[in-house]
Amino acid sequence: MNLIRNTFESELRVDYFDMADIGLIGLAVMGQNLALNIADKGFTISVYNRTYSKTEDTVQRAKDEGKGAYQLHGYKTIEEFVNSLAKPRKIIMLVQAGNPVDSTIELLTPLLDKGDIIIDGGNEWFLNTERRAKKAEEYGILYMGMGVSGGEEGARHGPSLMPGGPLEAYNHVKHILEKIAAPLENEPSCVTYIGERGSGNYVKMVHNGIEYGDMELIAEVYDMMKHVGKLTNEEIAEAFSEWNNSELKSYLIEITSKIFKKKDDQGEGYLVDKIVDISGSKGTGKWTVQEGAERGIAIPTMASALDARYISSLRDQRLQAEKQLTGPTPNDLTETIDKKVLIKQLKDALYCSKICSYTQGMNLIAEASKQYGWNLKLGSIARIWKGGCIIRAIFLDRIKNAYDLNPNLPSLLLDPDFNKEIAERQASWRKVIQLAINAGIPTPALSSSLAYYDSYRRGRLPANLIQAQRDFFGAHTFERLDMQGKFHAKWEEQ
Amino acid sequence: MNLIRNTFESELRVDYFDMADIGLIGLAVMGQNLALNIADKGFTISVYNRTYSKTEDTVQRAKDEGKGAYQLHGYKTIEEFVNSLAKPRKIIMLVQAGNPVDSTIELLTPLLDKGDIIIDGGNEWFLNTERRAKKAEEYGILYMGMGVSGGEEGARHGPSLMPGGPLEAYNHVKHILEKIAAPLENEPSCVTYIGERGSGNYVKMVHNGIEYGDMELIAEVYDMMKHVGKLTNEEIAEAFSEWNNSELKSYLIEITSKIFKKKDDQGEGYLVDKIVDISGSKGTGKWTVQEGAERGIAIPTMASALDARYISSLRDQRLQAEKQLTGPTPNDLTETIDKKVLIKQLKDALYCSKICSYTQGMNLIAEASKQYGWNLKLGSIARIWKGGCIIRAIFLDRIKNAYDLNPNLPSLLLDPDFNKEIAERQASWRKVIQLAINAGIPTPALSSSLAYYDSYRRGRLPANLIQAQRDFFGAHTFERLDMQGKFHAKWEEQ
Repeated sequence: MNLIRNTFESELRVDYFDMADIGLIGLAVMGQNLALNIADKGFTISVYNRTYSKTEDTVQRAKDEGKGAYQLHGYKTIEEFVNSLAKPRKIIMLVQAGNPVDSTIELLTPLLDKGDIIIDGGNEWFLNTERRAKKAEEYGILYMGMGVSGGEEGARHGPSLMPGGPLEAYNHVKHILEKIAAPLENEPSCVTYIGERGSGNYVKMVHNGIEYGDMELIAEVYDMMKHVGKLTNEEIAEAFSEWNNSELKSYLIEITSKIFKKKDDQGEGYLVDKIVDISGSKGTGKWTVQEGAERGIAIPTMASALDARYISSLRDQRLQAEKQLTGPTPNDLTETIDKKVLIKQLKDALYCSKICSYTQGMNLIAEASKQYGWNLKLGSIARIWKGGCIIRAIFLDRIKNAYDLNPNLPSLLLDPDFNKEIAERQASWRKVIQLAINAGIPTPALSSSLAYYDSYRRGRLPANLIQAQRDFFGAHTFERLDMQGKFHAKWEEQ
Repeated sequence: MNLIRNTFESELRVDYFDMADIGLIGLAVMGQNLALNIADKGFTISVYNRTYSKTEDTVQRAKDEGKGAYQLHGYKTIEEFVNSLAKPRKIIMLVQAGNPVDSTIELLTPLLDKGDIIIDGGNEWFLNTERRAKKAEEYGILYMGMGVSGGEEGARHGPSLMPGGPLEAYNHVKHILEKIAAPLENEPSCVTYIGERGSGNYVKMVHNGIEYGDMELIAEVYDMMKHVGKLTNEEIAEAFSEWNNSELKSYLIEITSKIFKKKDDQGEGYLVDKIVDISGSKGTGKWTVQEGAERGIAIPTMASALDARYISSLRDQRLQAEKQLTGPTPNDLTETIDKKVLIKQLKDALYCSKICSYTQGMNLIAEASKQYGWNLKLGSIARIWKGGCIIRAIFLDRIKNAYDLNPNLPSLLLDPDFNKEIAERQASWRKVIQLAINAGIPTPALSSSLAYYDSYRRGRLPANLIQAQRDFFGAHTFERLDMQGKFHAKWEEQ
């Protein structure tokens, strides 16, 4: 097949070009941006969207802002779109997760040939990807699930990419993905082959769970700064700005600093103070919590973050409860708060909690890898999160180093460098939570992180009592420290 | 049909009796005990088990210990078992949840007539029950999922029963269930019709989630008593024993007291100290946590309890971490601990956390009821937990009263009596967690409960920042306190 592209009547551009390197379906903002990114990097790309006006928008944007306008072509029908692609065809889908993905696959499948590749770039439930991959296999089509992080900006200028699926498929798109992913200094860009089947979606899911944790930790720190430290928004912005030159340097800290500087263009004061305190969620945080429970991995920092969003949604109840329920407020604090000291303590508390949160996330990935036989490389995953994505941070270098030092590290908490960092900071961490308790400020993520740390470093937990209770009422049996085997006691006989 | 039962060659008893009132399949200990309970209450019951020896055991036990030996008959084949039952046939299954239930239904269905009733008494995932009920309907069979709590003892002498499914089916077994359920003073026994479809399993699932929470809270209190208060096992037993004459009076507190008195018959000292500190779980706690996430309900106390079990399972890592990770120990406490004062503080902390945990559980049931259209009665559910089951406690009277006073109470935390109880106790609650932090003792459930309380009573949470961040990186939009509508800001423009 060697069609001349410009003979299609619905083709929007008239320039001659060969079969396109890659195609993209689904031209909401993320899809548009990723397509422009691909074109900018010198690849020819065909785009298609059910509603044609979005295709027109994309082509227009390529003309207006793209370096690669001549590389991007939009098609009116899916048949023309498919026929415009070089074989094996490589098609990225960026449509809404769930049913729309199934519909798109149904439309595509009859038009594809054996060896063609479909890549779902949405936040899809990993088992949906595995189900679709199995079905695609029957048609000889290679199916990938690829996590794409970085929001609209990332998609446009360099996201972090987490592609999972057949290695053969990855090798066909590798050269494209490596060019469009976020660049890093002196090392490859933010993409690596994650592993088989749904592993790419899985890693992206946990990435988002970690993102929930980071955001909640920052929110708690802000709450303490504002209400216990009585810091102004300018002072808060300044603190986060300073932290962005430290071990906490990260995208989320950076944008938080900017948020606190943003004036309200609708009235007096700062915009952040006018925003309703109800935070929404779109599912990946929930999945992470459910998967933690399913795999038997404790992820309390992320779970607290999800719960905090859920409790935030009960705003009417909270406004009633505020009048009705008693408890201390920051004004009840008897000790004098030194702003500078508090800021330092909060920084330490945030950093320690962050270590715990990432430990939980990496543990979840490791356990899923084991249970699903994915053979994931934790260090490489930490590496590709260093740029492009929402949780990008200098901190991820530390994690990568920890796994480089010991690829079989059972927990980041056992890494000597993290040990040292927590040792230096934990007094502040403990102090912050105690202050919060006295001030009546909830710090669910900071304190569940500390409880996680203190649980993990405990050679003997009180779980022996729970086993005794379970044996008492349910004859579930127990093990003994001093003998092998399962035991059951007649507890009622004293 | 009016068969003479004793003509069956495989029947184990020769006494004449009419068609049996009810049948029971699955004669592990729970099944045996429930069958004996039914026979003791004057009903005729047929029993069947795949492995016949268990049927023989059951019949022998009915002879040895039952008041109702003449009412219990065992059958060798499932056909004889089914034919021995009066119509509409009522069959309780107590087989392992999951596939064994499906297999049993497959065996039963061809033998049953329209209008017959199958009741699954296992800890089954509620959606499995709903799937099976739909299929059973095609055959005109009525299918129920019934939560049974109380362990082996409860099954034998009076469990708490949570039957869900068609009301028509419930009305056929009501007279039996009311007699075998745990009796209560001056009120009906511990059973009520829960609601349609899988609601009975659901309520039992949350019951178990609450049980996880109660057990973890007690374990944390024990940890503090032992390591911060330096209480001996006798003193710990004594404390729990005293609490069992207070507002904390409950089955779990009672057995905990007994556990600490139990000497080790294999050696010196107390048995509880010889038990390995790894606590297992069988799935219902996990489901509760997953459902909390699914329904959008924060249940941090129960989630902490599940996580604590998961962390306990990492014993080898913990033993390594204990040597490697720094942090305070109880010996680092600078303040002098008065045992009596500490015991009182722990009691208050436990009680306050318990209120939070049950609030979360009832909220989850309420939300599921709303989302599934079950129309569940929260007060009645609290009532039937007052006896028979593992979480039975005088405390459940308070919950029932709260819902009697206001059936639409959005949260138990808004009940005036609970308000007052927390008001009187919260200083201790906060003190205990602060002590634990200084002593390096993890109290995940106590502290996540407090964070839940402090979050709920906060009219303004820092979730506004999270919404700002989400709008910054993902254009997720936000709402404003002072204007209607959805807004998106250009955050980069200062």
